[in-house]
Amino acid sequence: MESELLKTQTTQQPNQQPQKPRVHRTSGLRIIPLGGMEEVGRNMTVFEYERDIVILDMGIQFPEEDMPGIDYIIPNISYLRGKEKNIRAVILSHGHLDHVGAAPLLLPKLGYPPVIARDLTVAIIKRRMEELEKNSSKRLDVIKINSVNDRFNLGKFKIGFFNIEHSIVDAVGVIINTPQGTIIHPGDWTMDTDNSNGQVLTYHHLANLPKPKILMLESLGATNNAKEVISEKEMYSNLEKLIKEAKGKVIIGTFSSQIKRVGHLLEYAKQIGKKVALDGYSMKINVEIAKELGYIKIDQETIIPVNKIRDYPDEKVMVICTGAQGEGNAVLSRIINGSHKFIKIRKNDTVIFSSSVIPGNERAIQKLKDGLYRRCDNVIHNDIMDVHTSGHSTANSIKEMIRQIQPDFFLPVYANHYFLKEAAKLALGMGFDPSKIFVLDNGSTLEFYNKTAKLLNKRVDTGYIFVDGLGVGDIGEVVLRDRQTLSQDGMFVIVVAVDRMTGKVKGSPDIISRGFVYLRESQELLKETRKRVIGIVEKNTGEKKAINWTYIKDQIRNGVGEFLFQKTERRPMVLPVVLEI
Amino acid sequence: MESELLKTQTTQQPNQQPQKPRVHRTSGLRIIPLGGMEEVGRNMTVFEYERDIVILDMGIQFPEEDMPGIDYIIPNISYLRGKEKNIRAVILSHGHLDHVGAAPLLLPKLGYPPVIARDLTVAIIKRRMEELEKNSSKRLDVIKINSVNDRFNLGKFKIGFFNIEHSIVDAVGVIINTPQGTIIHPGDWTMDTDNSNGQVLTYHHLANLPKPKILMLESLGATNNAKEVISEKEMYSNLEKLIKEAKGKVIIGTFSSQIKRVGHLLEYAKQIGKKVALDGYSMKINVEIAKELGYIKIDQETIIPVNKIRDYPDEKVMVICTGAQGEGNAVLSRIINGSHKFIKIRKNDTVIFSSSVIPGNERAIQKLKDGLYRRCDNVIHNDIMDVHTSGHSTANSIKEMIRQIQPDFFLPVYANHYFLKEAAKLALGMGFDPSKIFVLDNGSTLEFYNKTAKLLNKRVDTGYIFVDGLGVGDIGEVVLRDRQTLSQDGMFVIVVAVDRMTGKVKGSPDIISRGFVYLRESQELLKETRKRVIGIVEKNTGEKKAINWTYIKDQIRNGVGEFLFQKTERRPMVLPVVLEI
Repeated sequence: MESELLKTQTTQQPNQQPQKPRVHRTSGLRIIPLGGMEEVGRNMTVFEYERDIVILDMGIQFPEEDMPGIDYIIPNISYLRGKEKNIRAVILSHGHLDHVGAAPLLLPKLGYPPVIARDLTVAIIKRRMEELEKNSSKRLDVIKINSVNDRFNLGKFKIGFFNIEHSIVDAVGVIINTPQGTIIHPGDWTMDTDNSNGQVLTYHHLANLPKPKILMLESLGATNNAKEVISEKEMYSNLEKLIKEAKGKVIIGTFSSQIKRVGHLLEYAKQIGKKVALDGYSMKINVEIAKELGYIKIDQETIIPVNKIRDYPDEKVMVICTGAQGEGNAVLSRIINGSHKFIKIRKNDTVIFSSSVIPGNERAIQKLKDGLYRRCDNVIHNDIMDVHTSGHSTANSIKEMIRQIQPDFFLPVYANHYFLKEAAKLALGMGFDPSKIFVLDNGSTLEFYNKTAKLLNKRVDTGYIFVDGLGVGDIGEVVLRDRQTLSQDGMFVIVVAVDRMTGKVKGSPDIISRGFVYLRESQELLKETRKRVIGIVEKNTGEKKAINWTYIKDQIRNGVGEFLFQKTERRPMVLPVVLEI
Repeated sequence: MESELLKTQTTQQPNQQPQKPRVHRTSGLRIIPLGGMEEVGRNMTVFEYERDIVILDMGIQFPEEDMPGIDYIIPNISYLRGKEKNIRAVILSHGHLDHVGAAPLLLPKLGYPPVIARDLTVAIIKRRMEELEKNSSKRLDVIKINSVNDRFNLGKFKIGFFNIEHSIVDAVGVIINTPQGTIIHPGDWTMDTDNSNGQVLTYHHLANLPKPKILMLESLGATNNAKEVISEKEMYSNLEKLIKEAKGKVIIGTFSSQIKRVGHLLEYAKQIGKKVALDGYSMKINVEIAKELGYIKIDQETIIPVNKIRDYPDEKVMVICTGAQGEGNAVLSRIINGSHKFIKIRKNDTVIFSSSVIPGNERAIQKLKDGLYRRCDNVIHNDIMDVHTSGHSTANSIKEMIRQIQPDFFLPVYANHYFLKEAAKLALGMGFDPSKIFVLDNGSTLEFYNKTAKLLNKRVDTGYIFVDGLGVGDIGEVVLRDRQTLSQDGMFVIVVAVDRMTGKVKGSPDIISRGFVYLRESQELLKETRKRVIGIVEKNTGEKKAINWTYIKDQIRNGVGEFLFQKTERRPMVLPVVLEI
């Protein structure tokens, strides 16, 4: 259901319980980040005032290197357990997965509180919900933001908005006004530098909001000391030149959420009479969504299906696709490993990475570049020419933001801890009162009361909730550690059948090993291991004494482990199985 | 043994076989890179002319993300099998592990050909050999380079040298003169910008070498478009300012091979009366080596053991240590996780990363920085201030090198393929004859004959040789793939005892699973799995028909695999064990 009726100036939250007389608590306004303060991703912040809760963003985090097999991580919402009825709304700043990806899993657990977001953001969540479970998106309770002038009253919270520039359309800055202070939160942002449309976005008007103003500022750019940032205009001019002068096909890899850029490229292709094929699942999906919302005009003369590109001369063909992060099964990788059915790359083609390197993907991207350079003489990326603009800020623009908004409190957010600290230093350098800067952790509780802020002692549980396949939160430390151990030196299972009566080993112990050594070339090692296992068992089962099977298994585990290490300096996971027969 | 006697102008190789009359072959001079053309590391190049072979470098490569458990990778020397007697010498350009790390493993396999290198390089190899096997370094046959004016005749090869600047002392550029051409190879290099010592290194004199001159140029900096590079002088000035003004301890993380920098810091500490503790195994080892060689002066008043740092006021203490790459068990990580016995970090300490980010270590370093920023208000790295100079070149310096040396052929080397291609483009942009630029792959064979170069069709085997524990080359694709599978979703072993006579399963099948699910919370799943396994077995063993155990195992593997995937969307490695009893 869509709460269309709610889009009024004084929206009342529909799920709200019948009003009980409120106990006045002196708790003030609490800001509790559940994620996004120690990593990039898993962004989610709880704002709590008396019996009202508003949530901003519900993102996922991609797994670290020491989390093999994990699909992604979602915020831990144990703090909200028992408080579901207080949640007035979930505001989503924009449609990137580190801001909305966890919503399909978390909203059901919170009883589907209303979701406040702009069109594209809503469409992206709905799509993800449908992918997870058919028809589930119907349960979504949506309050659409039609204009940054919309205002919503949610309990004691008054919600407003402002325009910001980011690398996805429909990103929105959020104002959360409470009796104890006004939060200003641009979500992810970059300073608008492009005045080709006549007007550059500024934030001076936010300086007039009621005090104390609390600026929560995404600070990924805190150590980016670039003096000048490439403007969109310059980037497009570079891209257009490359596309126009290309002697072969043009293949552009970019983020599928870069709707505006894709739209621009489609427009330009039409102008110069090139045909465009879109390729990659998420690219096609997002363009379809954007088309439905009217954000992209699709000219039927310009767009062609990817299986038809061979019907046109190479110099008339442009492909916009996914995979610029080196993802193994995305379009660019498939082109390189030859498994792409329709796109073959030629020496005189032009491949453009209109994208940045997401931390953690450096090596995969390097491999991808190597593969492309082998097949193509014109591979262009940001090291070569400015063919991408970042969606994030710089040190200078963080300072400019502070200058324009003149906040009373400064909370850098949505980045690794060390970026937050550097952003705090930028504010300090401008003369900001150090007692009014707070670098929070996940689970910190910052309370505003009577124009002062206090960091409470208690910490909310924000332990990782891993998603792996259908399992949400069922994988813990132990399973992960086992995966790491298995990946390092493999495993070694020994199955021994022991005659219950005689204590003798029956037959030869079975060994199942994977990821440890090449078994065929290790017959000697296996033979010696079997001998040792038989020795260990029979030493402890003889003489009719009471047999301690747990002890015997431990002995096998340790004895075999040590023996294998001594022979190979590897430590496979040794797992003994003893069958009494 | 050290071949001190060999350091003459016309050295004859001692291990050389009795001279047979040489058959004149028209094969010309062959350059065969066994590594270093597709990756950073595993640098090793074979130069072959008639019956003489000279080798440059024997490096290791660090494992990629898809090579779990691998310690490192060494060059594949199958091309040299049967040609051991032709190897006149192995020249080592400098002591970094990607240039010498494989020597302790490869030299024995090649019958210990003479090693030509400068002091520190020799000392580093000897140390590594001793670590692998006590007393093994005595077998090393060393020809020391005492001066860049040394000349060695090795069969038809004439070897000379030139000074170059790199991030380790005793790096040397190599000239290999043959009847078919003169190879000029600086190893790893950076353009010298520091004229504080009165004279800047230039390469004009190499332009006079006999033609055709073949420049093999390390090209890691090919996309580094920095206009100005920070000089050593500026870097030291920044470091000194930080050290001098520090209010607490100063902790400097750097590469242990940065002997010169460590020496400089020790000198400066002495000047201003600070005490220095060196920490980290490789740091202490390398400083000890450098001290023995006279490259570092250790002032006994300045140096203190790390367990004594608490005896001095914080502002008098400086620690130089390892771990700036985020290595889990190195000093900086141990300081953060609290497991360092003597170094506790305080808010007013200063931590300096005088190091670069080695590709692949981005996330580990980010984690390390986060940890340090939490404990300390003054964390300084290159994003904040220039506290490190790179040992590699820039696009500009590559062009300058070409300008000064005026080579006839240009071969970019020692970097990922895409850097080599970009270096080639730099040369092309200068008007270099495209037919005289070669971007080789590992295993390519380039032949020079009669002043022309030809890429031969044949490719030499350069497949990965993995080192894991004591095993060299025993781990192949299959074992690695198993490790990857195990790391993703773990493993699931099912042990079924079947009565040989009745075909019935005896008791309940045993299940051993790790890294898949949390077993205690999955009892239902395990129970259902057991039931299915019994069903599969008894369906195929009943009715006294001939029992096909292989078929039954396959059925279990597939049936259980599918069932588990359906229930969890995970694919653990399923391993059935069937015991006939």
